[in-house]
Amino acid sequence: MAEKPKKPQKLRARLPRGLEDRGPAAIAATRQMVEKIREVFERYGFEPVETPAMEYTDALGKFLPDQDRPNEGVFSFQDDDEQWISLRYDLTAPLARYVAENFESLPKPYRSYRAGYVYRNEKPGPGRFRQFMQFDADTVGSASPAADAEMCMMAADTMEALGIPRGSYVVKVNNRKVLDEVVESIGFGGQEDNSRRLTVLRAIDKLDRLGLQGVRQLLGEGRKDESGDFTRGANIPEKRIDGIISFLELSGNIEKMTGSGKEKEGELISFIERYFEPASGGLSGVEELKSISAIVRAAGYGSDRVRIDTSVVRGLEYYTGPVYEVELLLDTKDEKGRSVRFGSVGGGGRYDGLVSRFRGEPVPATGFSIGVSRLQAALTMLGKLDTRPEFGPVVVTVFDRDRIADYQKMVAVLRNANIRAELYLGNPKNMGNQLKYADRRNSPCVIIQGSDEKARGEVQIKDLIEGAKAAAAIASNQEWRETRPAQFSCREDEMVAKVREVLARHDVKWG
Amino acid sequence: MAEKPKKPQKLRARLPRGLEDRGPAAIAATRQMVEKIREVFERYGFEPVETPAMEYTDALGKFLPDQDRPNEGVFSFQDDDEQWISLRYDLTAPLARYVAENFESLPKPYRSYRAGYVYRNEKPGPGRFRQFMQFDADTVGSASPAADAEMCMMAADTMEALGIPRGSYVVKVNNRKVLDEVVESIGFGGQEDNSRRLTVLRAIDKLDRLGLQGVRQLLGEGRKDESGDFTRGANIPEKRIDGIISFLELSGNIEKMTGSGKEKEGELISFIERYFEPASGGLSGVEELKSISAIVRAAGYGSDRVRIDTSVVRGLEYYTGPVYEVELLLDTKDEKGRSVRFGSVGGGGRYDGLVSRFRGEPVPATGFSIGVSRLQAALTMLGKLDTRPEFGPVVVTVFDRDRIADYQKMVAVLRNANIRAELYLGNPKNMGNQLKYADRRNSPCVIIQGSDEKARGEVQIKDLIEGAKAAAAIASNQEWRETRPAQFSCREDEMVAKVREVLARHDVKWG
Repeated sequence: MAEKPKKPQKLRARLPRGLEDRGPAAIAATRQMVEKIREVFERYGFEPVETPAMEYTDALGKFLPDQDRPNEGVFSFQDDDEQWISLRYDLTAPLARYVAENFESLPKPYRSYRAGYVYRNEKPGPGRFRQFMQFDADTVGSASPAADAEMCMMAADTMEALGIPRGSYVVKVNNRKVLDEVVESIGFGGQEDNSRRLTVLRAIDKLDRLGLQGVRQLLGEGRKDESGDFTRGANIPEKRIDGIISFLELSGNIEKMTGSGKEKEGELISFIERYFEPASGGLSGVEELKSISAIVRAAGYGSDRVRIDTSVVRGLEYYTGPVYEVELLLDTKDEKGRSVRFGSVGGGGRYDGLVSRFRGEPVPATGFSIGVSRLQAALTMLGKLDTRPEFGPVVVTVFDRDRIADYQKMVAVLRNANIRAELYLGNPKNMGNQLKYADRRNSPCVIIQGSDEKARGEVQIKDLIEGAKAAAAIASNQEWRETRPAQFSCREDEMVAKVREVLARHDVKWG
Repeated sequence: MAEKPKKPQKLRARLPRGLEDRGPAAIAATRQMVEKIREVFERYGFEPVETPAMEYTDALGKFLPDQDRPNEGVFSFQDDDEQWISLRYDLTAPLARYVAENFESLPKPYRSYRAGYVYRNEKPGPGRFRQFMQFDADTVGSASPAADAEMCMMAADTMEALGIPRGSYVVKVNNRKVLDEVVESIGFGGQEDNSRRLTVLRAIDKLDRLGLQGVRQLLGEGRKDESGDFTRGANIPEKRIDGIISFLELSGNIEKMTGSGKEKEGELISFIERYFEPASGGLSGVEELKSISAIVRAAGYGSDRVRIDTSVVRGLEYYTGPVYEVELLLDTKDEKGRSVRFGSVGGGGRYDGLVSRFRGEPVPATGFSIGVSRLQAALTMLGKLDTRPEFGPVVVTVFDRDRIADYQKMVAVLRNANIRAELYLGNPKNMGNQLKYADRRNSPCVIIQGSDEKARGEVQIKDLIEGAKAAAAIASNQEWRETRPAQFSCREDEMVAKVREVLARHDVKWG
């Protein structure tokens, strides 16, 4: 028996986990969001700069919170010359490289913004993507708390520009120096305790997701998640954990007290001060919090928009001073009717060491990052984004396949009149399929020209929007055939004007 | 002697070769270009879709022209589950995966567009980047030459929308079936000659860059480039090379003949037909060229915009029928005064096999790609892009560092009036540095408030644009000090109105 020719194996069309394709509505929504954010950032005097998606791995450094992954959460490959290159995991580390590389030629302070995709080699999960968009602003070369205060105000303004009402978001401010002092007070002080200190901070950073009980477990012996995976804890004695938790709870407890926002904030600051020994490192952090608070209030931002919160950490390792986080306070329901709290949609902080790594001199810097993809998911769920499909193009149908060139010419006439239009390019043998296609594209109308119309120098225009309404009102097929609603003919040289009338009647506007 | 503490090694701030950072002017130019292209593509009835930057390596396939590189020109890494993932090298292969994955739910023909960065693991060189932007449109599910004709017309319209005048670009059309036949006629016919056939096509594809002599060498024994690198040739006997070259020269020779565009095109088509044996595969390609030509002409596009050219190949392996290329016909000078011919800034073709790889059924498709980065470089050199720097923000200076909160409040007042503004965030001890900073930022004016002004409830506004003009006209420092041109005071509550006057006077508009 002769061998059968091997059937070529069919490739599977699929994306790697944690990646997604995006359709017209999502793309339009992102564009709108990015435009609004850009407008706010530019009003604040930031100018655009863009760096490529990849950098030398050593230039990016290793500052990601998830270290339980190969490559520490980063996608990397080796270049021809053996040097390692990585995809950026945020927009801050590349900016630090950019500023260091162009230090002499940039105005200082250097205020810049940029939007772009970042890549994380994470364990993908629901809502966790390996490619997502961030929109960042940074001020490099200013040690002033005014620079930090500005980031917080800008974050608040951005939320409102995106349609999130005042009271439905809050920008929370804390300070790593303060947190470091809290952690040092449990004995994790020296250089050699760096990684234990980070473990503690990252446990606290999960407060949002895991609640106080989860954080307690991570500070203690460890925590088993729903999937059964066990995360080892920081092994801090119970009593010391109580101390940390009581600090984290400070701002929450103050909130519950009576009094005005201003009184409460004064109260909170003095509580924080009392937490520390005199002359401890934490106090300079408290001073920065006071300055930020004073500047923000003077500019008219109340504690409903920007406020101190002792539980804010931010997971990235490079922060050295003030840290901020934007939280959405809205609850909503997911498809299954379960309540969803969005939590953090952006954040940032001061990273005085990041540019210095390259320069060998102190270069203070602070920045803020909006999680565009995450925020878009939130806004979509909240119904704040216009996700209605746009109208499709006018479709010129093919009645007679020998006359393709004529139909294409009609399309060109429409396009030259700035009307979105296309020739039906599928198999033209069935007019029904052509009309179905136009429906699928959400076309406002189609153009038909058979030989009779051609002989009379006419075209038929079928108004699909009107037609859909009429179809709903008509009882029988016979009535339909007799009345042929929403279809009319006109002279070929009137086609553009008549199509414009149909578009105007239904208020069809294209992006 | 005690050991000196090791000085930590300073990191070098630099980008890997072939990558670039982009500043405000380049970013604004890209945005303008992308908007204009988008407008044309949408007028043609294409809708947006976006795929991520990475895909399974096997889904992308290996179709790149440069195979003399490790990974065949693609950046790749292994996922946790050992599967290989690559950065996309174009926007066509990911689209094919997307359409195959969502085949049932998409309208067919499926017409879509997308802009995005693509990545090539190439030997970087002048003007050759490893990350660059493309803007693509594709029609999947139509075998009609009308779909190809549309791509060519759209390419022409796009060039004009971008400000390239008619006559300064041309869309050249050819057909791979025709070229395959030419190559087969020299004996590279069967399946096993696939790679030799590709070598020939790719040699021809370099006509633009290397000229006829370079192509001759690559078809023959090989070619040594300026750097001394030797590329092995296809080793075709001299006489057969003459045959290929004469075919490539057909359209050029026809161009030189007298007669109208239409006559010349008819002439060219009959020349091509005569080149082949009757009933050869090349003839169906000629039929497609005829159809495209007829449709394009009927829609009013002359041979100055779209024309048949027997020398067009396109380097990508996946093309199966019509191929097109947009060429800029403009010469310009580079910084060193050398003449630069831009050549191809986009192209595409029919790739009937790409979606089929996943579906196991024939899925015809055709597409077109604009090299946005390449075109931008060309437009910049030609002075077609607005590269003037934008005006910077109004800078509120810090006269008295204890009054930061007051100054920040002024900034907030300006911003709330929708005026771009910022607080000077550098070291405020020197007013001169603050004014220098404002100059660097191209600010229209600065706000100054010392204690005297404060006491009077006033601010000083310094008009930097007027000031620069005045400075040019004033002879002595003394005259300057006495007249203090372009600086005036106003009541604090008039600040917004007065700043608006300054902006209006100089026609300051922000993007």
